Amino acid sequence: MSDSGTVHTPRNPDWERVVRESFARQAYMTLIGARIAALAPGRVSLELPFRDDLCQQRGFLHGGVTTAIADSAAGYAAFTLMPPKSSPLTVELKINLLAPAAGERFVATAHVLRSGRTLSIVEADVLAEAKGVRKPIARMLATLICLENTSDAPERTAV
Amino acid sequence: MSDSGTVHTPRNPDWERVVRESFARQAYMTLIGARIAALAPGRVSLELPFRDDLCQQRGFLHGGVTTAIADSAAGYAAFTLMPPKSSPLTVELKINLLAPAAGERFVATAHVLRSGRTLSIVEADVLAEAKGVRKPIARMLATLICLENTSDAPERTAV
Amino acid sequence: MSDSGTVHTPRNPDWERVVRESFARQAYMTLIGARIAALAPGRVSLELPFRDDLCQQRGFLHGGVTTAIADSAAGYAAFTLMPPKSSPLTVELKINLLAPAAGERFVATAHVLRSGRTLSIVEADVLAEAKGVRKPIARMLATLICLENTSDAPERTAV
Amino acid sequence: MSDSGTVHTPRNPDWERVVRESFARQAYMTLIGARIAALAPGRVSLELPFRDDLCQQRGFLHGGVTTAIADSAAGYAAFTLMPPKSSPLTVELKINLLAPAAGERFVATAHVLRSGRTLSIVEADVLAEAKGVRKPIARMLATLICLENTSDAPERTAV
Repeated sequence: MSDSGTVHTPRNPDWERVVRESFARQAYMTLIGARIAALAPGRVSLELPFRDDLCQQRGFLHGGVTTAIADSAAGYAAFTLMPPKSSPLTVELKINLLAPAAGERFVATAHVLRSGRTLSIVEADVLAEAKGVRKPIARMLATLICLENTSDAPERTAV
Repeated sequence: MSDSGTVHTPRNPDWERVVRESFARQAYMTLIGARIAALAPGRVSLELPFRDDLCQQRGFLHGGVTTAIADSAAGYAAFTLMPPKSSPLTVELKINLLAPAAGERFVATAHVLRSGRTLSIVEADVLAEAKGVRKPIARMLATLICLENTSDAPERTAV
Repeated sequence: MSDSGTVHTPRNPDWERVVRESFARQAYMTLIGARIAALAPGRVSLELPFRDDLCQQRGFLHGGVTTAIADSAAGYAAFTLMPPKSSPLTVELKINLLAPAAGERFVATAHVLRSGRTLSIVEADVLAEAKGVRKPIARMLATLICLENTSDAPERTAV
Repeated sequence: MSDSGTVHTPRNPDWERVVRESFARQAYMTLIGARIAALAPGRVSLELPFRDDLCQQRGFLHGGVTTAIADSAAGYAAFTLMPPKSSPLTVELKINLLAPAAGERFVATAHVLRSGRTLSIVEADVLAEAKGVRKPIARMLATLICLENTSDAPERTAV
C-alpha cells in the first residue's frame, strides 16, 4: 500500500504553531536533545544527535530512546490533524528494533495511516545516520486518542 | 494463567553480578535516575523518581520514559536466565499506556513468560505511586533475543 | 500486578444475554467450532476442540485461529462491561505465540485490564490441553473501542 | 522509508515450489477459501473472497480471519527468503484494524522489512475490495523465526 498519495487536511488552521509550542513543552525531548526536523499535515520528523548518556550497556542508543523519539513523532503527526482545543495521547505502541542503533544522528519520521474523530493510527520509522549513510533501525505502529476539549498544557492550580 | 508458580533456574551462577554490572553500564538509566529495586531469577523491578525533565507537554511522565524503564526491566529479567557470555537484545515491544503517568515514583516490574534458548517473552507492568497508593499505568509484552558468545560490554578498539 | 482482585461491575444488567446472543451471531466461531466455556463480568473463556482443517502446514493449530479465539474472548470480556445499545470493536491486538499449538483442545481466557468509557484494554491467554495437561501457547494484549448507540447486530435494509 | 527499492535474493533456488507446496498444506487456508494471488522474493499476496461464515456478529469479516490471511502472507513472504530445509514460525504479530472489513474480496500483501539469519520482520496490509474500489482495512507488523534443519511438513510416525 502506498501512503504517499494520501493528502491530509488539518482541522486546526493554527496546527503548526500548536504543534511547535507543544513540542517545546516536552521537557524530556529537551533533556535528550531532540528537535523538530520537518513538519507537514500528517507527517513529522524529529532528529536526535548521538550522545553517550543516551546509551544502553553496549554503547548503542537505548531502545527506550529510539521508542521515545518515534512516539513523539507519532504523537505530533497525529496532532497536526486534530481539531482546536484537543490534545493527543498515546494509547499503545509496538516497535520492532531492526538493527543496533549506532550512528551520529537518528531521525524518526511518523506518518498518519488513519485519522479518525477519536483514534489515529500512525506508523513511524527510525533511521540511523553514520558517515552520510542512513539505515533503518526501527519500525513502529501506534494508536493515539484525541482528547477533545482538553488543554494540551499542564493544568494550573488557582492561587 | 498464573505466573506466580513458575520457578526459573538461572543458567549463569553469576547472574546477579552480571545483571548489576550491565545495568550500571546503561548510561541512559543513570541519566533518568532509574535504579534496581528488586532482582530475582526471571523477575526484575526498576524504580524511577518523578522529575520535571522527564515529562511530556502536559506534565505527565513521557511515554518514552515509561517504556524505557519497562524495556530495561524486561531486558534484565530475561538476562537473569541467559547463559554466561551472552547479551540480551530487545527484538520488539508493545506497550499499552493505561492511565496518565502521574506520581512521585514509578516502578516497572518485568517477569519472564517463556525463556527459550534463543528467544525470551517477557511481560512488564509499570505502577505509579502517589501519596502511598500504587496504580497501574502501563502493561508491556516484549520479545528479546539472546546473543550468544557476545560481550555485553562495548567492544574496545585496540590501542 | 495481580489482576485477581479486580471487581468489575457491569453497566448493562442484561450483559450475559447480550454477550451470548452476540457470540451466537459470530458465524465464524461456529465455522471453527468454538464455544463459550465461562462468562463473568470482565472475564470470558472460549474453548475450541482440535480439528485437522484448522491447521497450518506442519499440523499445528494455525496462528490465525489461535488469534481468533483470543480476539473473540477479548471482545466479549470487554463487552460484558459495556453499556446497553453499544457494540465492541477491536482496534488492535498483539499476540505472542509461546509454543507450537498442539493438543486436543484449546482454551482462550480474556480478562479486562482497564475498562474506560471509550477504550478497553484486555489481556488474553491461550492454553493447549493434551492428555489432561494444560500449557500456555499464547499471550495477547489488545485494545477495543466501545461503539455507543450502535447496534451489535447487522443492519437490516428496509424492504 | 521506501521499501520499494529493496531487492531480496532468495537463499533457496527452489523457493517458489517450496512456498506453494507449504501453502497447499495449510488446511485452514483451504477451509476459509484463501489462495495465493502473487509471489515474489520477499513479497506475497493472498486473496480471500467474502463468505457469510467468516463473519463476526455484525456481518463484517472477523478480525481473526483478517489476521489469519495477513499472518499467512507474512509467513510466506519470510519463507521465500529462507534457506532449504527450514520452516517459518510466527513469533508474534501486532495488527491494527483500520476500518470495518466489508467487501466482496480481501487482499493481504506482506513484504519483508528485514530478513536475518534467525529472525524476519515483516509488514502486511489488508485491503478490502468493494465495487472495484480497494481500501485499507488493516496494517500488521510481525516477527518470524527461521527454524533451521526443520521439516516444513508434519512429522510422520514410523509404522
